[in-house]
Amino acid sequence: MEVTRRLSRMVRGHVSVVLTLAFVLCAAGVALADSLLIKEQGSFFVGGRTIFTDTLTGMVDGFPGTNINSGHITVDQMYVQYQIPEGGNSHVPVVMVHGCCLSSKSYETTPDGRMGWNEYFLRKKRAVFLPDQVGRARSGFDSTAINQVKLGKHPPADLPEIRTASNEIAWGLFRFGPEMGKAFANEQFPVEAFDEFGKQVIPDLNASLPAVNPTWTNLSSLAIKLHGAILMGHSESGFFPEETAMLNPTDIKGLITIEIGCPADLSAEKIATLAKIPTLIVFGDHLDDAPEPYGSRWRGRYKDCQTFIQQVTRAGGDATMMHLPDFHQFGNSHMLMQDKNNLQIADLILKWIDEHVENKKKTATSAAKK
Amino acid sequence: MEVTRRLSRMVRGHVSVVLTLAFVLCAAGVALADSLLIKEQGSFFVGGRTIFTDTLTGMVDGFPGTNINSGHITVDQMYVQYQIPEGGNSHVPVVMVHGCCLSSKSYETTPDGRMGWNEYFLRKKRAVFLPDQVGRARSGFDSTAINQVKLGKHPPADLPEIRTASNEIAWGLFRFGPEMGKAFANEQFPVEAFDEFGKQVIPDLNASLPAVNPTWTNLSSLAIKLHGAILMGHSESGFFPEETAMLNPTDIKGLITIEIGCPADLSAEKIATLAKIPTLIVFGDHLDDAPEPYGSRWRGRYKDCQTFIQQVTRAGGDATMMHLPDFHQFGNSHMLMQDKNNLQIADLILKWIDEHVENKKKTATSAAKK
Repeated sequence: MEVTRRLSRMVRGHVSVVLTLAFVLCAAGVALADSLLIKEQGSFFVGGRTIFTDTLTGMVDGFPGTNINSGHITVDQMYVQYQIPEGGNSHVPVVMVHGCCLSSKSYETTPDGRMGWNEYFLRKKRAVFLPDQVGRARSGFDSTAINQVKLGKHPPADLPEIRTASNEIAWGLFRFGPEMGKAFANEQFPVEAFDEFGKQVIPDLNASLPAVNPTWTNLSSLAIKLHGAILMGHSESGFFPEETAMLNPTDIKGLITIEIGCPADLSAEKIATLAKIPTLIVFGDHLDDAPEPYGSRWRGRYKDCQTFIQQVTRAGGDATMMHLPDFHQFGNSHMLMQDKNNLQIADLILKWIDEHVENKKKTATSAAKK
Repeated sequence: MEVTRRLSRMVRGHVSVVLTLAFVLCAAGVALADSLLIKEQGSFFVGGRTIFTDTLTGMVDGFPGTNINSGHITVDQMYVQYQIPEGGNSHVPVVMVHGCCLSSKSYETTPDGRMGWNEYFLRKKRAVFLPDQVGRARSGFDSTAINQVKLGKHPPADLPEIRTASNEIAWGLFRFGPEMGKAFANEQFPVEAFDEFGKQVIPDLNASLPAVNPTWTNLSSLAIKLHGAILMGHSESGFFPEETAMLNPTDIKGLITIEIGCPADLSAEKIATLAKIPTLIVFGDHLDDAPEPYGSRWRGRYKDCQTFIQQVTRAGGDATMMHLPDFHQFGNSHMLMQDKNNLQIADLILKWIDEHVENKKKTATSAAKK
């Protein structure tokens, strides 16, 4: 009986250890459920080239007598910020590229303070890479043309065209509503935070970039560096995934084009290249009732992308049109990654990735094993 | 005996459960130890004002006939990216501001791919806030002056002075070595990754900002929004923490000034304001043997900051000079947050925060409770 009692005590002792451990584990689990568990994060540059310039106008740091007007600087580099969540290595990384007059901020916290796609994709175990386009934000820009005019070496007409979206342009073009300050009845963009959105809008020097945009070249290098990536573009960069793939399709696993027109004049050869990569085209709502001159433009873009999808499909490709109202998401603006239903749209895109990129990958792996 | 055997089996059963749980817990612990556990992350803007401009030169998105040349845009806003680690709420948040011709990238992954201060401070349970200065990177800049010249409304001389650091200037001024391409014998900057550093250097329009830099005003708003913050500045922004505190000391818990001169002409009133906040001044190595014209400049800056510390101390303040060689860290450059011993320097700064800001806070709390 003494043995039995001792064993019984041992069991009770273990039970309390088990319960304690279970509690600690559970607490850790709760913490994990709420928190982001990041395996790796940081930033790096892709591309860039060193040039000599004799038009450095700025005195560094106010040194008297050292207004050095020549030297070597780096241009065309692309800044990339990234996070890889725990478990993220089992999925294909997603590269999210921002649009005109914007930065990667587009994909972070929304103007009204909700979770952006960056964090949501991380929580869905996707590694997320956020480049700032060449010429913008942390990638910097080449100020040579401006300095040349300041120093009288070139005429003012040679100054770069600097694009921006005024509040008035943004409201109409981005389909927040039928007229400035008035939202569509079912508008999903958080118009109450329009002022915060306005702060995201920054000068855009893309008009000065060469015909082959260095961002495309750098996106190709990035896909190769990552040994495979899904490229996502929005608005100005909407077709950048395809432009990149037409330069070099290596390691591009999926193309996601959000809210931009598709070119009508692609050669059969280029369509054939693109047809090898699963493609998703996303458009929001109110294409039919956006104010002019924007409305007809949006309808044209949508139509051109329908044609593009037909071309890719005919070439044996896997291309999907996701016009959000057809997927039961209504009232979406051009800035749909910031709209109030942004996470539902993210779920639709994640589902497309699972079905068209990741399952395809698994099938390919299984096939390779046979 | 049957009972004993059954109990024995139960114990063995529990042991295996305990071992399994212990293993899972241990695995989770290992994962936690390696991974970053982020409680909250995102980005937002501080400040900014809406202006009307009739010089928008860029056609948005190539709309024919809609080259709208007027509208409202936002300027002077400050982009802030942040992460709060699990347990981070028990420490005072740290705001890290970058220097001339640079962005917050300064504090992220180093040019040679090591961990930057951003991640290291997170791992030490500090919430980290990374602003891009007004006029730079994701904060954007006001392109009005450039557009005005392009449209012929102003002469080329009115173009902003755009500062940059050529490779040649950076090598000498940032104390990488005695002459271009040659490093000091004990140089801590990863000069083998100098090309990668060059990619961080971007155009700087601070020379066009008003006398009261909007970054200072926005840093004050940020400290208040956070209900307390330590402000850290580097180089161009080295004295921004103090400039901000002189505008409004509310909720500024510590001032960290890295590698810049201190003004000699501050009034007794201003010194008295600053003396209420713990202050740390950090300088690297090679102040005495940096190449001219930089060497004498660095020696002057160091001397001016010694004088400043004396002034603050005399006014009853708590100001510390951390000349790194005095703290057994040798060979440090101007970019000491990227130097090879950057984490040892971070430890010195964290120790200073613990002893001069956080312990002070605890004492104040205890005193308040009495």
